[in-house]
Amino acid sequence: MYRSHTCGELRIDNVGQEVTLSGWVQRSRELGGLTFIDVRDRYGITQITLNSDDNADLATQARKIGREFVIQVKGTVKERSSKNTNIPTGEIEIIASEINILNASKTPPFTIEDDTDGGEELRAKYRYLDLRRNVVKEKLALRNKVALETRKFLDSEAFIDVETPYLIKSTPEGARDFVVPSRMNEGEFYALPQSPQTFKQLLMVSGYDRYYQIVKCFRDEDLRADRQPEFTQIDCEMSFVEQEDILNTFEKMVQHLFRTCRNVELDETFPRMTYAEAMEKYGSDKPDIRFGMEFVNLNDVAQNKGFKVFDDAEVVLAINAEQCSVYTRKQLDALTKWVQRPQIGAKGLVYVKCNEDGSFKSSVDKFYSQEDLQAWADKANAKPGDLLLVLSGDLNTTRNQMNELRLHMGDELGLRNPNVFKPLWVVDFPLLEWDEESGRYHAMHHPFTSPKQEDIALIQTEPGKVRANAYDLAMNGVELGGGSIRIHDRELQAKMFDLLGFTKEEAEEQFGFLMSAFEYGAPPHGGLAFGLDRLVATMGGSASIRDYIAFPKNNSGRDVMIDAPAALNDEQLTELSLALNIQSAE
Amino acid sequence: MYRSHTCGELRIDNVGQEVTLSGWVQRSRELGGLTFIDVRDRYGITQITLNSDDNADLATQARKIGREFVIQVKGTVKERSSKNTNIPTGEIEIIASEINILNASKTPPFTIEDDTDGGEELRAKYRYLDLRRNVVKEKLALRNKVALETRKFLDSEAFIDVETPYLIKSTPEGARDFVVPSRMNEGEFYALPQSPQTFKQLLMVSGYDRYYQIVKCFRDEDLRADRQPEFTQIDCEMSFVEQEDILNTFEKMVQHLFRTCRNVELDETFPRMTYAEAMEKYGSDKPDIRFGMEFVNLNDVAQNKGFKVFDDAEVVLAINAEQCSVYTRKQLDALTKWVQRPQIGAKGLVYVKCNEDGSFKSSVDKFYSQEDLQAWADKANAKPGDLLLVLSGDLNTTRNQMNELRLHMGDELGLRNPNVFKPLWVVDFPLLEWDEESGRYHAMHHPFTSPKQEDIALIQTEPGKVRANAYDLAMNGVELGGGSIRIHDRELQAKMFDLLGFTKEEAEEQFGFLMSAFEYGAPPHGGLAFGLDRLVATMGGSASIRDYIAFPKNNSGRDVMIDAPAALNDEQLTELSLALNIQSAE
Repeated sequence: MYRSHTCGELRIDNVGQEVTLSGWVQRSRELGGLTFIDVRDRYGITQITLNSDDNADLATQARKIGREFVIQVKGTVKERSSKNTNIPTGEIEIIASEINILNASKTPPFTIEDDTDGGEELRAKYRYLDLRRNVVKEKLALRNKVALETRKFLDSEAFIDVETPYLIKSTPEGARDFVVPSRMNEGEFYALPQSPQTFKQLLMVSGYDRYYQIVKCFRDEDLRADRQPEFTQIDCEMSFVEQEDILNTFEKMVQHLFRTCRNVELDETFPRMTYAEAMEKYGSDKPDIRFGMEFVNLNDVAQNKGFKVFDDAEVVLAINAEQCSVYTRKQLDALTKWVQRPQIGAKGLVYVKCNEDGSFKSSVDKFYSQEDLQAWADKANAKPGDLLLVLSGDLNTTRNQMNELRLHMGDELGLRNPNVFKPLWVVDFPLLEWDEESGRYHAMHHPFTSPKQEDIALIQTEPGKVRANAYDLAMNGVELGGGSIRIHDRELQAKMFDLLGFTKEEAEEQFGFLMSAFEYGAPPHGGLAFGLDRLVATMGGSASIRDYIAFPKNNSGRDVMIDAPAALNDEQLTELSLALNIQSAE
Repeated sequence: MYRSHTCGELRIDNVGQEVTLSGWVQRSRELGGLTFIDVRDRYGITQITLNSDDNADLATQARKIGREFVIQVKGTVKERSSKNTNIPTGEIEIIASEINILNASKTPPFTIEDDTDGGEELRAKYRYLDLRRNVVKEKLALRNKVALETRKFLDSEAFIDVETPYLIKSTPEGARDFVVPSRMNEGEFYALPQSPQTFKQLLMVSGYDRYYQIVKCFRDEDLRADRQPEFTQIDCEMSFVEQEDILNTFEKMVQHLFRTCRNVELDETFPRMTYAEAMEKYGSDKPDIRFGMEFVNLNDVAQNKGFKVFDDAEVVLAINAEQCSVYTRKQLDALTKWVQRPQIGAKGLVYVKCNEDGSFKSSVDKFYSQEDLQAWADKANAKPGDLLLVLSGDLNTTRNQMNELRLHMGDELGLRNPNVFKPLWVVDFPLLEWDEESGRYHAMHHPFTSPKQEDIALIQTEPGKVRANAYDLAMNGVELGGGSIRIHDRELQAKMFDLLGFTKEEAEEQFGFLMSAFEYGAPPHGGLAFGLDRLVATMGGSASIRDYIAFPKNNSGRDVMIDAPAALNDEQLTELSLALNIQSAE
């Protein structure tokens, strides 16, 4: 028996007991003839004490023990003279009678502490050591709890967990698929799912009524900091529902998760905002509503006053940074540089200081009178002491830039407390978005999303104006999930594929099985999917999903610990009827 | 609102209520001026009644409705005059006031009934209709319940669910990997995991102590009836444990699953049997112990009596089919033919009828006296009325054949009741098995399995005799799962790779990360994995796992519903730096 108790278990009540513990050596120190060893496992840390005078052999043994050794200790639980109130086991220590080294350890390449001295690359290579740190364990423990509570909640709401296949069929729509060559079907490939979308819809056609799955999905996209080639979704679908039924069900779920996993009570009802309003007020379809600083359109007060930059602009937008008129020239210059970075791309930043004395000082004083600026301030509801920040240009670009600036100011002013959680349903997304490059419409959500009944007539005339029964759940500036009410009518689905530029043959080849299924009694249905990585990261108060993934890949899609991907040998390639066709080698 | 209640919900207490139901039309019939429509959803079936005289419009509407139409019905709950005690809603009916067709249905290609008229291929193509059948829904509901109860149990035992990556690295050991070309890392491939083995071991090195995951695994093998290219494992690992700890933990889990999901109490302690004993008594490492009929070795009583077939054989094995001396010539001929089928491959079958009068009648009477046969019967503990069935040949082949014959007899004699469940731990598997083809040893379980301490010395001298700390859980002749105590010492792991024919460089390239991890304080650990598909099928009393998978693939690894795998277009191949290299086209 390796242990009678874990390292987090013993208390004052256990004093006098003979126990056996196993774990890792966190540290070891000698003090006045005594040796103290802190031994650690997943459950906690316990102090082992041994007296070199009493037991010379034990002391010799103890001297061999270094950090991260795995040891087994037998001994007696004793009340400590100097108690440590910081840890649950801090009232006791184990007086060791026997210590066995179960496994030695080389000196780790970085310290196994919450604040480690290891850099990102080194920790990635030795991820198994990085995972030992408590701060990382807590993140994965949160993930475990969120996943399990998700299941318990959905089970209590009659959702059934159905596994859908991972080896499916490639479709050219959307992001790139990862593909898997089939040895048994020469020259053919499976694709890994970007989502189980069509399968969950088929399950609705099959009458499963309420489906869920916590499932890996795959996208072969160029990676950004918060993307991974494989990611996990909480994927759900319901039959005989309208949009409101889905929003109600899943806000209950999110409330449940925050209550059980974070001890946080969210809003009783999540606010709802149309996509149009979110874009107008925040320039984002996932606004962070922990703070205000809504966009103010200054077109009617800032244009036609001789300032060509604004006059030529489609839109002049301001935000009001309250109590920031004290910003120095240096701070304002830094803000200007910030918006001019390539990632943001603004040409410049106009500011208006609303001085405490009621006067205004702006970077465009030569074009605007004090009365003009007063009109801006009035529009923006700015008070003495506030600071207006103004950007201009074409509508979409300026909204994007102002969104970034607003979030940046929120960070600077400490308005984005990671322990405050503000959910927001964004609804009425457009059905389609125009893609300049391909010169055609793309589905904004996916081709299975239904248009709003009242907008269906617009499909022929003004497709860009058609709103979808589509919704996202945003929280703290992050998109936690999204979904839609689906099309369940073959004719409408065929029309949709046509609109998206599919030929009849292409639609049939790729999605014929789904359209065929719609001919055999498909119920009205809809659903949504949450990104589990992002949900857990948000719940943990972090912006990075990578911290919440046990074995993440880097920005090149590599696992540097196991060194994947890797070359195959010729035999493997031949067996798969494949040859390499390296372009860059030519 | 599509519905106020489900189709399985209304009872006599609801009489008088105005309700709205939505569902599929199971059937519709007219009788004496009344129309009856049975409407079905996942939760049940409810009878809708309408009176054509009262409401002519409604009657017209109802006439348009065919089987599998999706309809919405509004009406009043009424007590039925003729009650149906077979269904929970059988005491009531809905007197319809309004019927809306939500979606029409073509006539399905097969009947949506427990006993459908659809053949296997047709049901595979229209799997979404096959999934509508109650018998299929019940199987997937059982799977859902088993998965959730597994999680609840493991959570209660402090196991933590950690997701391991799907895009990993190909290793030539074991079965073939499915591979995934990487676009971002030109010419390189990921592999899909055959199991998360190395990752779960790393999690133990990281101190996660108890890990589990219900996870898809992938093997590119030629498929048999009970194999799928993708399958699901309940994958578990524990630290600071010995074999006995693992067996105890997981027999508690299996007991929990049978109790909660099948209302069956299994043995309080599962019997244990060594691999050697299982092979000797049953010729199988997963014996069905619902019945006896153990192998009896007749070498000392059947050899050297002039019957050359037996004299030349390595082994003469018998089983005793109790009460079967009444078998007719025709039945015995059929049995002989059965063992001579290519799948079994026996040359012939010797029988001995132990007649009720104490005499014997055998197919080898000319070689053996009544006394000889009496000796056989004594050895086999056969009584008057029993039938001995005897096979001979080399040890392994004869055991295999006798195993098949024993199971066949068990089936014939009704000894394999699918509602009786007999678990058995098979322990002490050999560490290695000799592979004639490659002329070297293979790991019987996998290269990470630890040898028994007392057998370590044999590794150099007689590797084939080394027993492993490896165990399987068998039930009813099926292997539900298996695992081992792992090696956690770098030197021993390196020795193991050497024994398996890896060069130092190969071992380092493929498993260097794991051996490196063992140098930083790896705890003793072990685990096991259950095949979820097989576990659920066994619990459901079925031999076929395919019935318990929502979207299974056929024996060629194809999903015939979505028609996958499929060809890629040239653009996709080029982007992946691949070209086809079809051998068969040359």
